[in-house]
Amino acid sequence: MTQTRWQRLSEWPLTATAVIFLVAYTWEVIGNLSGLSELVAEIVIGVTWAIFALDYLINLVLAPRRWQWFYTHILDLLIVVLPLLRPLRLLRLVTLLAVLQRTAGAAFRGRVVTYVAGAAALLVFVAAVAVLDSERSNADSTITNFGDALWWAFVTVTTVGYGDFAPVTAQGRLIAGGLMLGGVALLGVVTATLASWIVERVARQEEDEQAATRGEIRALGQQIGRLQDTLDSQPSASADRRP
Amino acid sequence: MTQTRWQRLSEWPLTATAVIFLVAYTWEVIGNLSGLSELVAEIVIGVTWAIFALDYLINLVLAPRRWQWFYTHILDLLIVVLPLLRPLRLLRLVTLLAVLQRTAGAAFRGRVVTYVAGAAALLVFVAAVAVLDSERSNADSTITNFGDALWWAFVTVTTVGYGDFAPVTAQGRLIAGGLMLGGVALLGVVTATLASWIVERVARQEEDEQAATRGEIRALGQQIGRLQDTLDSQPSASADRRP
Amino acid sequence: MTQTRWQRLSEWPLTATAVIFLVAYTWEVIGNLSGLSELVAEIVIGVTWAIFALDYLINLVLAPRRWQWFYTHILDLLIVVLPLLRPLRLLRLVTLLAVLQRTAGAAFRGRVVTYVAGAAALLVFVAAVAVLDSERSNADSTITNFGDALWWAFVTVTTVGYGDFAPVTAQGRLIAGGLMLGGVALLGVVTATLASWIVERVARQEEDEQAATRGEIRALGQQIGRLQDTLDSQPSASADRRP
Amino acid sequence: MTQTRWQRLSEWPLTATAVIFLVAYTWEVIGNLSGLSELVAEIVIGVTWAIFALDYLINLVLAPRRWQWFYTHILDLLIVVLPLLRPLRLLRLVTLLAVLQRTAGAAFRGRVVTYVAGAAALLVFVAAVAVLDSERSNADSTITNFGDALWWAFVTVTTVGYGDFAPVTAQGRLIAGGLMLGGVALLGVVTATLASWIVERVARQEEDEQAATRGEIRALGQQIGRLQDTLDSQPSASADRRP
Repeated sequence: MTQTRWQRLSEWPLTATAVIFLVAYTWEVIGNLSGLSELVAEIVIGVTWAIFALDYLINLVLAPRRWQWFYTHILDLLIVVLPLLRPLRLLRLVTLLAVLQRTAGAAFRGRVVTYVAGAAALLVFVAAVAVLDSERSNADSTITNFGDALWWAFVTVTTVGYGDFAPVTAQGRLIAGGLMLGGVALLGVVTATLASWIVERVARQEEDEQAATRGEIRALGQQIGRLQDTLDSQPSASADRRP
Repeated sequence: MTQTRWQRLSEWPLTATAVIFLVAYTWEVIGNLSGLSELVAEIVIGVTWAIFALDYLINLVLAPRRWQWFYTHILDLLIVVLPLLRPLRLLRLVTLLAVLQRTAGAAFRGRVVTYVAGAAALLVFVAAVAVLDSERSNADSTITNFGDALWWAFVTVTTVGYGDFAPVTAQGRLIAGGLMLGGVALLGVVTATLASWIVERVARQEEDEQAATRGEIRALGQQIGRLQDTLDSQPSASADRRP
Repeated sequence: MTQTRWQRLSEWPLTATAVIFLVAYTWEVIGNLSGLSELVAEIVIGVTWAIFALDYLINLVLAPRRWQWFYTHILDLLIVVLPLLRPLRLLRLVTLLAVLQRTAGAAFRGRVVTYVAGAAALLVFVAAVAVLDSERSNADSTITNFGDALWWAFVTVTTVGYGDFAPVTAQGRLIAGGLMLGGVALLGVVTATLASWIVERVARQEEDEQAATRGEIRALGQQIGRLQDTLDSQPSASADRRP
Repeated sequence: MTQTRWQRLSEWPLTATAVIFLVAYTWEVIGNLSGLSELVAEIVIGVTWAIFALDYLINLVLAPRRWQWFYTHILDLLIVVLPLLRPLRLLRLVTLLAVLQRTAGAAFRGRVVTYVAGAAALLVFVAAVAVLDSERSNADSTITNFGDALWWAFVTVTTVGYGDFAPVTAQGRLIAGGLMLGGVALLGVVTATLASWIVERVARQEEDEQAATRGEIRALGQQIGRLQDTLDSQPSASADRRP
């Protein structure tokens, strides 16, 4: 089996695994589980981790140029190995956004807006869950429930940054950094899409005005032509006047 | 009666209802009313609510495909049913902005600027009133008078976000979220309009330069033509030279 | 004398008056004057105020349609009458920026950048002075020296907004509002200018590539032409082959 | 030797000096050195300073118009003379970014993205080191370790600005100002690149649609042509029908 074939086959199962991971992770963090529930959630998360690790190994084995693939996918290895980068496993969910995008019709700008709105909502939710997971156990932390975490994530992604809540742990700040970059990109895409739309509308309006001007010139030309015709249909009279 | 006809008929009465609702709501919140005044304000707000509810029901009855309309207008139902979403009834006032826009002349960019300035001012004012309404009764809240609320709304919409005031209730944070999205859109429109203007000005300058170059080439061509004419007007002399 | 002529004549004297006002105002606020120095500064500020008031009256008298001019220049009246809007008298200094702009050469984008950099620097400086003037006398205020005021103004205009310093008086917040709007516009102009530049560079690169392709096609055409010529110069041989 | 030749020869040695300065400076600040280590770091920093000062003097001597060069390179003098502006010596490292840029391929937008990402990462790192150096010795300061300094720099460059950490010394605030300007430029470049990309994609889509329309028109024309041919190939029949 080739690597390309494996990636096509595994795309949807891995997305489903990411969804299961998201549900179990969110349940564990928000529910602040203990006892049996925590064990169940941990087992589900462990299983999804095993699936991601297996996918990484299969890809490594199937890659035509193994070392090159290894070097260009160092981040994939880190996501599998480091528990710190666990939230990044949810990057798989971008596949779902691709579906959302397909249903949004053919217009490019419409798809960009759908994609960005979906990605921003997902980013804010995942960042809130992940920050709560990192911060809750810290004594200095102010982010101690999911409501506050969601509020903090929204204040951060829009780059408002009140500072009433701010992460204090290294892991929480790493997540915050990713969220801020997402916010900068969000602002950029919103502005760029609006700019593209305004530039187009203004250009179209100018074209309309030019077309209108051309139309008027043509109408003027026809009026002159009709005047000429009127003059031509009185040949003798005008000939009489000119000696 | 068809739904379209109803919507055309009801457009201005509903906008007037929204204005009355805004005045009564602002009066109640800023005035921090009690006794008879509070009763009057509550009755006026109740009547405007009844009108919005009636409009929703009539639309539902008149809709050609009732279930489809119901599913695509879930937000309208929530705005009528949930007191939490009460400020969203003021979305009706966008109709007023459409009038403002019409008076701003034909240029597309001019209308965008007028519309955005009006929408931003309305958004800041309504958010300040709504946040004050949500926060004042909370013990932890810092936003306790209208001046502070307006200042907070302005600091938020520009994404500055000092954090000297920040909402602590769920409803206040929901309003803040809407205001932040408005701020991101505001920044986007300002930038996009400026970008469209600069792109156009630069393009026009380059066209002018190209036109100037073309003009110089044409002038050069005419000079050459005149040289040729001068040479041609001395036929015998040049003929003499050539054997 | 017509109003247009008066405005042309008074342009530079009024700009000079604004510069004198700026120097006296800055000296009074930063120096935190008392005694004779304060009296001198107040007299200078009073004289500049009288000049601005006189200019307003002369404009009102000379205006062809007096009431129309009055209604469309309400802000000018408020700037003269209300001490609160005193910093707005410095809007006159924009004339100086126009000179700066003229020296920046013909390129539109270059002039935009010069103008915006100058306006932003002036805005930050004036806002810092004005906020210090408004806030220093208030007991709750944190902005009590010029260094802090300048730092606050810079943090605000870039929309970073730490919140370590924030105005608490109504006048200080009004000034802050103007500064924030300036910051939003600043961000917009920076982005728009960069966007215009990138769009142009990308378009030029594509044109270069298209020109290169066209050049290659032409070269190919010439090669084919030379092949044809070579074939044509051997007429008998080819004629012999074809019966 | 001419100045141009000296600058070409000294470009890479000076960049290497800047790298050594960066390493020594970072080591001294983060390590919070004392005793022998501090002495070594100070000596290395002193040597790199001497090299920069020497380069300034050689440039001054070799400049064709010495006074003009002196006036237009005042900043270079200040960077060498004032210890406060020491971090600005790292501007030399921009040469490294130019190399990074060269490896990023020919596409203009790709190079802009590579350059900006590299410059932003360098800016955040250097600002964190420099702010830590300025703030640590101050009693009121909150930025006392490198982790906090890096977090502060990231929060600032994205213009989020929580305010949990903020510089209090004049030197720290000067560095913060530079970082904020970098943040504004960063936001601008991200948005502008996205805008350029979206404008291009939309334009291409429209061209495709227009090409498709033209294709359909041509196909229609060919169908009509074939109909005509069919009719023409039955000359007698049609001739019979027409008398």
